[in-house]
Amino acid sequence: MIPAGQTFADRLCERAARFSPLCVGLDPFPDRIPALFGDARTDPGAIERFFLEMLALAAPHAACVKPQLGLFEPFGPEGTAIAMRIAAAAQSLGLPVILDAKRGDIGTTAEGYAAASLGPAPGFDADAVTVNPYMGLDTLEPFFAAAQARGKGVAVLVRTSNPGARDLQDLLIEGRPVYAHVAELLVPAQQRLIAACGWSNLLAVVGATAPHEARQLRAILPTALFLVPGYGAQGATAKEAMAGLPRGAGGVVNASRAALYPAAAADARSLPAWRAEISAAIAGLAQELRVAGMDA
Amino acid sequence: MIPAGQTFADRLCERAARFSPLCVGLDPFPDRIPALFGDARTDPGAIERFFLEMLALAAPHAACVKPQLGLFEPFGPEGTAIAMRIAAAAQSLGLPVILDAKRGDIGTTAEGYAAASLGPAPGFDADAVTVNPYMGLDTLEPFFAAAQARGKGVAVLVRTSNPGARDLQDLLIEGRPVYAHVAELLVPAQQRLIAACGWSNLLAVVGATAPHEARQLRAILPTALFLVPGYGAQGATAKEAMAGLPRGAGGVVNASRAALYPAAAADARSLPAWRAEISAAIAGLAQELRVAGMDA
Repeated sequence: MIPAGQTFADRLCERAARFSPLCVGLDPFPDRIPALFGDARTDPGAIERFFLEMLALAAPHAACVKPQLGLFEPFGPEGTAIAMRIAAAAQSLGLPVILDAKRGDIGTTAEGYAAASLGPAPGFDADAVTVNPYMGLDTLEPFFAAAQARGKGVAVLVRTSNPGARDLQDLLIEGRPVYAHVAELLVPAQQRLIAACGWSNLLAVVGATAPHEARQLRAILPTALFLVPGYGAQGATAKEAMAGLPRGAGGVVNASRAALYPAAAADARSLPAWRAEISAAIAGLAQELRVAGMDA
Repeated sequence: MIPAGQTFADRLCERAARFSPLCVGLDPFPDRIPALFGDARTDPGAIERFFLEMLALAAPHAACVKPQLGLFEPFGPEGTAIAMRIAAAAQSLGLPVILDAKRGDIGTTAEGYAAASLGPAPGFDADAVTVNPYMGLDTLEPFFAAAQARGKGVAVLVRTSNPGARDLQDLLIEGRPVYAHVAELLVPAQQRLIAACGWSNLLAVVGATAPHEARQLRAILPTALFLVPGYGAQGATAKEAMAGLPRGAGGVVNASRAALYPAAAADARSLPAWRAEISAAIAGLAQELRVAGMDA
């Protein structure tokens, strides 16, 4: 049993209220990592140094961080090992880690992915993981079971922020879109994974570029925490991003490029100057979300 | 440009005709790996030794192999490194490698996953990879582009073999199931990735447990190669598995547990005895599929 108040949802909500609903997405783009850290195009160690500095700057402003595994894996097993060390460092700073892996498979393979992402070692021991619902509820069950046993979170793709989300998620089934049907399927897991704080360790990924859909999904999943991508570089405003988070509660909004690679930081000539620019960028994003949350 | 006759589809079809349409799924289950190779529960090296032996036994009978990445990742970065070495060893024996990763994400992250699975190094340099369509066509595009540039294959989940496939894939949109809509979305990619042999480097994952659906999907995607899971341990017969492969052509049928862990091999007391049992099991599966293909 996980002690009351100690699951992922409890810790995430506490931090979101205390700091902001900002989730800092950890997306390594070697071309954009300042030369101050080394040449990330040839030395993956530069990625690690960059993100270890980033974590310390994010901790006083953000609710959590989200390493994007698909941008670490092109570096081979060493890339995965770097992502694991970054995740552990975030946790040691008190920052919950949502591993953005978007996994999904059947039976024993789903059990494998759940263990590889949510622990125990030697894989990741993240606080939550993103998963894909296309193959059906039975393929999500091993993640729900792991979340329940270990006080972790599971974030299911429902309505994503990319233009292609229309191809399948928006198709209408008897007048209701596919994404609404997916949300309905998740209602029992939402109940089962409810935390002491009143929010669920079942999260729904709901794109910031779809504020109308976010309100519709909030009605179907009233206690699911929302993980909202698409804010900032993908074009959504803070107000749009907070559409599914009434009074600023019930989820986190991800920003990656706007937090990691602001234009002003690209020109920084020293580590202190870079730190000042990143701190200002992250504090600005956090503040923008807090203000938008008051109106939502 | 990839030379004519040299893409994944060309090599797969040539091997399927010459040997059989059997794909041997490489699924590590440490509890089931014979003690002859060491204790796989505590020594991942035993997994590597087991599969390197397995590849040599599969090469004279199978069209290809399919490492199940979700069962290697729980071993951490070392598990991924072992899967990479096994994949490279398969290729050196002439066995095409379909990396079963079921990835799917947006934009630059999808590009990352495409590079991590289809190459170039330092990630995998597999011959094909499985992907998930839930997020839409734009999320598959980086895989199609990599496939086209490097002569590789992309296997898209369409109708899977698990019971939960009903939850979403079978929902009806104006009388037609979601999986048929997904197949329709893939028609342009099928055309674009057509190989010299006449079959496409666009593959569709179509479960053996759904023979009726397989025939329906064959009509929508006449030149897509089918990757058929669910044969053997998951309950489908060879005849059901070959339903979407008229005259035995146009795809491969995966068997994992029936090939890797036949009951007779569990009791083998020596490596030669184990080899004989595995060879017989794989040859039997291959023959069963060849016979079923003649009737299909």
